[in-house]
Amino acid sequence: MRATVMRNRKLVVDTLPDPKPGAGEVLVKTLACGICGSDLHALQHADRLVEAAIESGAPFIMDPKRDVVMGHEFCAEIVDFGPGCQRSLEEGARVCSMPLLLRSEGLQGIGYSNDVPGGYGELMVLSEMLLLQVPNGLSTRHAALTEPMAVGLHAVEKARLAPEDVPLVIGCGPVGLAVIAALKLKGAAPIVAADFSPARRALAETLGADVVVDPAAGSPYRSWQEVAKPSGDVPPMPFALGPALRPGIFFECVGVPGVIDQMMKGAPRAARIVVVGACMEPDLMHPILGINKELSLQFVLGYEPHEFAATLFDIAAGRIPVEPLITGDVGVEGVGAAFEELRQPEKHAKILVEPWRS
Amino acid sequence: MRATVMRNRKLVVDTLPDPKPGAGEVLVKTLACGICGSDLHALQHADRLVEAAIESGAPFIMDPKRDVVMGHEFCAEIVDFGPGCQRSLEEGARVCSMPLLLRSEGLQGIGYSNDVPGGYGELMVLSEMLLLQVPNGLSTRHAALTEPMAVGLHAVEKARLAPEDVPLVIGCGPVGLAVIAALKLKGAAPIVAADFSPARRALAETLGADVVVDPAAGSPYRSWQEVAKPSGDVPPMPFALGPALRPGIFFECVGVPGVIDQMMKGAPRAARIVVVGACMEPDLMHPILGINKELSLQFVLGYEPHEFAATLFDIAAGRIPVEPLITGDVGVEGVGAAFEELRQPEKHAKILVEPWRS
Repeated sequence: MRATVMRNRKLVVDTLPDPKPGAGEVLVKTLACGICGSDLHALQHADRLVEAAIESGAPFIMDPKRDVVMGHEFCAEIVDFGPGCQRSLEEGARVCSMPLLLRSEGLQGIGYSNDVPGGYGELMVLSEMLLLQVPNGLSTRHAALTEPMAVGLHAVEKARLAPEDVPLVIGCGPVGLAVIAALKLKGAAPIVAADFSPARRALAETLGADVVVDPAAGSPYRSWQEVAKPSGDVPPMPFALGPALRPGIFFECVGVPGVIDQMMKGAPRAARIVVVGACMEPDLMHPILGINKELSLQFVLGYEPHEFAATLFDIAAGRIPVEPLITGDVGVEGVGAAFEELRQPEKHAKILVEPWRS
Repeated sequence: MRATVMRNRKLVVDTLPDPKPGAGEVLVKTLACGICGSDLHALQHADRLVEAAIESGAPFIMDPKRDVVMGHEFCAEIVDFGPGCQRSLEEGARVCSMPLLLRSEGLQGIGYSNDVPGGYGELMVLSEMLLLQVPNGLSTRHAALTEPMAVGLHAVEKARLAPEDVPLVIGCGPVGLAVIAALKLKGAAPIVAADFSPARRALAETLGADVVVDPAAGSPYRSWQEVAKPSGDVPPMPFALGPALRPGIFFECVGVPGVIDQMMKGAPRAARIVVVGACMEPDLMHPILGINKELSLQFVLGYEPHEFAATLFDIAAGRIPVEPLITGDVGVEGVGAAFEELRQPEKHAKILVEPWRS
């Protein structure tokens, strides 16, 4: 099969042996696979990624010295069954799956494995028990957005949202946009979102942000404070404690050093900061800010199976407007150039790889 | 009155004007006041403390260029009443209070104020509405331990302890010991605690630690893992995910740079880290460890009024063995030397200042 391969820290297109489905596994044609910011990270910082995975006791770790076919945001079509499958779905069925392969000898992370290919190749093997059929009428391209959108739902679930919370989303790349969509679905309001890019701020509004802020023009934290004032007549706080504000729930969706500390500086007392952006570098912070304000930092990763499934059905039901997020399409030959383009936030949100495209 | 004064970054003994109780305030004789690690910090790093207070929007901020009488862990005796007091307690009553003075023009932090003295002086003014009478039969010296012990209770409350949680306390100074006492009161078990000092490890056991670890001899995180294995027959985790462990609730009670990151490295998946130690310096951490393990960091400060009151009554009821924590007593002349001695963890836990002592 044809695939875009990460080889010696570069992306190359090559012909690889077709994967063979093992017990309980299906062979699928990759119909569409989104390019994730984590893949850009992985290409640039493979060693750090592996080091962090080892330190974190991750259940699967790739070896960047060997080939990896990345791609973990996919929609695919069943073409064959391995031994022992239940075959509750038929050949030709369109499916999504969490990017995990459940093998008795250990988990494989689809898209970050040396042993099984991800969605930047024409074929993959998936665990039958993780398959979710794409509902009739939902386009393949939209179904492929399930994985990144599920990340947003999980972050919001971990945030333990309360009705009085006022969210602030820092960074409106695909992760921030997924968080905004999930916040909107949960009824959070008003949602404040900040990004330097006008295109991303426009997308943030499309996904449900009520107030968008250009950090170059004004402080997102000040904008948050303005909308976090309770409505109606609120008695002044005694003892000069400043204005009463609704609780702050901040989402870090940038993932570069310095942002967590900046958010801790900008946060109101008792704010909860959910860290969704994956910063690969060491980061400096001032714990005393956390102490003095009794902040919390909740780091999050991925999603639970039920969140992944709920996201697919939310997209199918039209509750998440994913179409505007898709800003490009490429075949396997175009993945390398797409990685370069994605470094320009003004131009793109999500580029889909369609490996069978000529 | 005689008092130990922080003046030009030094502790000096001086005679100051007696404080005058304002409306709703009582004048008290300080009977005993503990020396807190925060006071040692404040003397060494006054500028950083003030800078952090400003950045955090703290409701009261001292000016280290002016005199400060520190001391916020006190038991005192009512000697006079300001105008407008309810006088529900009588002259001569022994009282504790949260170290706050509620004034209409703003809060004053007793012990970190330029305007009102703390417990390292013979006299203080307190807000009548915050007074808690010391129960009959409870010694003044033990009652003075209410404030530092309440810090532990608050940290444990913020931890949202569940019965299956296994706590690990890193650092067994007064803060760590207060956390251990509160964990014991809440029924957490087994409690693992680590400190380099044999004397502090012995105190940790007295306060309720079940397993104490010398980090110089072995990893506290390994010791934690050993006791966090669920008892009885537990099915092995599928897909080589490693052993199932009970949830980890870790308490950072050291407050120096590097400890948070070390705890994030040592923590199991989904551990909650409660940061009680007040690190005044910038600190380096690796966010990707937090992400990969979905850790949370909850920074905590102080206590709520009901936690402060509960702690006084827990001490009075003999549920917190505070006597072994008191390792020294000094008058105002001895505070400077006591600060020096407290830098040696082997020798001391809590030194009480008794300002009227000759």
